[in-house]
Amino acid sequence: MPTLVIANKCYSSWSLRPWLLIKQLGVAFDEIFIPLDLPDTKEKVLRHSPAGKVPILIDGDVIVWESISIMEYVGEAYGAPVWPEDRKARAMARSVAAEMHAGFSALRSACPMNLGKKYAQKDRGEAVARDVARFSEIVRQARERFGAGGPFLFGAFSAADAMYAPLVTRLDTYSIALDATTRAYVDAILLLPAFQEWRSDALKEQWIVEADEVGEDAIENYRKAA
Amino acid sequence: MPTLVIANKCYSSWSLRPWLLIKQLGVAFDEIFIPLDLPDTKEKVLRHSPAGKVPILIDGDVIVWESISIMEYVGEAYGAPVWPEDRKARAMARSVAAEMHAGFSALRSACPMNLGKKYAQKDRGEAVARDVARFSEIVRQARERFGAGGPFLFGAFSAADAMYAPLVTRLDTYSIALDATTRAYVDAILLLPAFQEWRSDALKEQWIVEADEVGEDAIENYRKAA
Ligand SMILES: N[C@@H](CCC(=O)N[C@@H](CS)C(=O)NCC(=O)O)C(=O)O
Ligand SMILES: N[C@@H](CCC(=O)N[C@@H](CS)C(=O)NCC(=O)O)C(=O)O
Repeated sequence: MPTLVIANKCYSSWSLRPWLLIKQLGVAFDEIFIPLDLPDTKEKVLRHSPAGKVPILIDGDVIVWESISIMEYVGEAYGAPVWPEDRKARAMARSVAAEMHAGFSALRSACPMNLGKKYAQKDRGEAVARDVARFSEIVRQARERFGAGGPFLFGAFSAADAMYAPLVTRLDTYSIALDATTRAYVDAILLLPAFQEWRSDALKEQWIVEADEVGEDAIENYRKAA
Repeated sequence: MPTLVIANKCYSSWSLRPWLLIKQLGVAFDEIFIPLDLPDTKEKVLRHSPAGKVPILIDGDVIVWESISIMEYVGEAYGAPVWPEDRKARAMARSVAAEMHAGFSALRSACPMNLGKKYAQKDRGEAVARDVARFSEIVRQARERFGAGGPFLFGAFSAADAMYAPLVTRLDTYSIALDATTRAYVDAILLLPAFQEWRSDALKEQWIVEADEVGEDAIENYRKAA
């Protein structure tokens, strides 16, 4: 059984990606949890991977890091349907997943993933608006061309959805205005049983990661204890 | 035959990645060339891909963008040995390729790819030094564990080498000091016939992309005409 090394479920967007995919596809795995931003965080992460970042998948003597390569590995090693079967859909799914891997930096830095809070809608600048528009365009194109078999980007849940899941939570957390197609997709992700399990764990966490808390009053604080 | 849409061979680091892989693996392809940084660049790129960036692979009615997903596509569609065969090596190759895809930002922004120039060695700051150290660590570990069959990261040339090729050119262009193992690896990439072909095309180009020209006197200017 593989082990996935992850960080705070409230804040660690990269940890969520492979966790959600593996959980949703029904591959059994263990978890090792390393809280972010503590004096010994880096040392603990480096014990598992020389790249010094989570998520990390440990499978016997195979070590895989970077969310997107963990996903490819799970597809190959566990025969899980990580990507759409249709080759055209698969090409687009891998393209949008990779686009996420290195992109959407304005949205990511202005709106850190934070499952414990909800913020009021406000203007978050042009670069963020461009990222949101590009995401909506991806949702529209994928759903139109390949979405017939289900509510996700390519119908059935795939690695492309897992890659965008943290972005989806940001749209919700920061009350970003969305068109109907994007809104329906966002809701499909938020309602996913695997996501609800992750979120419920997140809300039990006590740690505050200051770097991921924006200086605004929240309109909801879901972590009563924190 | 697939068509690869690329930009300036002198400057476009992302274009180099899949071009080098496909060329080196002997898959035949056509090229469409779009010079960067001209008034109509964006419009021309958007005609091929809604993500608005090169490289883009067009294969009949399949469109693939993002260098790393183009590489996966070529492996699947053309049965080319894009990744190492051994599953442990393949897991590490995909991990380091993905690490490149979203990483090494200090080195990438301080030292833009520029095949037309050579600059003197100088201190480029701590963050750049950390990126160089991490790259050397990757080279050392990959070569030690999986490098027996050839001079590349995993022995034979793979997508991992293609992903790091632009970084390798930067180490050369900016005269960055390297340990012997890293130096030997850098030389293996620079001597690759496919890379030499790319570089020779690059040196014939006339365009200057100001954003990729650092404000330093070059110690070599290989593009006499530019
Ligand atoms: N590109 C990486 C990003 C991983 C990443 O940035 N992880 C963060 C947590 S979300 C991390 O490990 N931070 C701890 C640190 O840098 O010390 C991936 O796809 O996995
Ligand atoms: N993550 C992308 C990066 C692609 C990229 O940034 N391409 C640059 C050229 S090297 C580009 O198209 N720039 C033109 C523009 O942004 O208008 C990939 O892997 O392909």
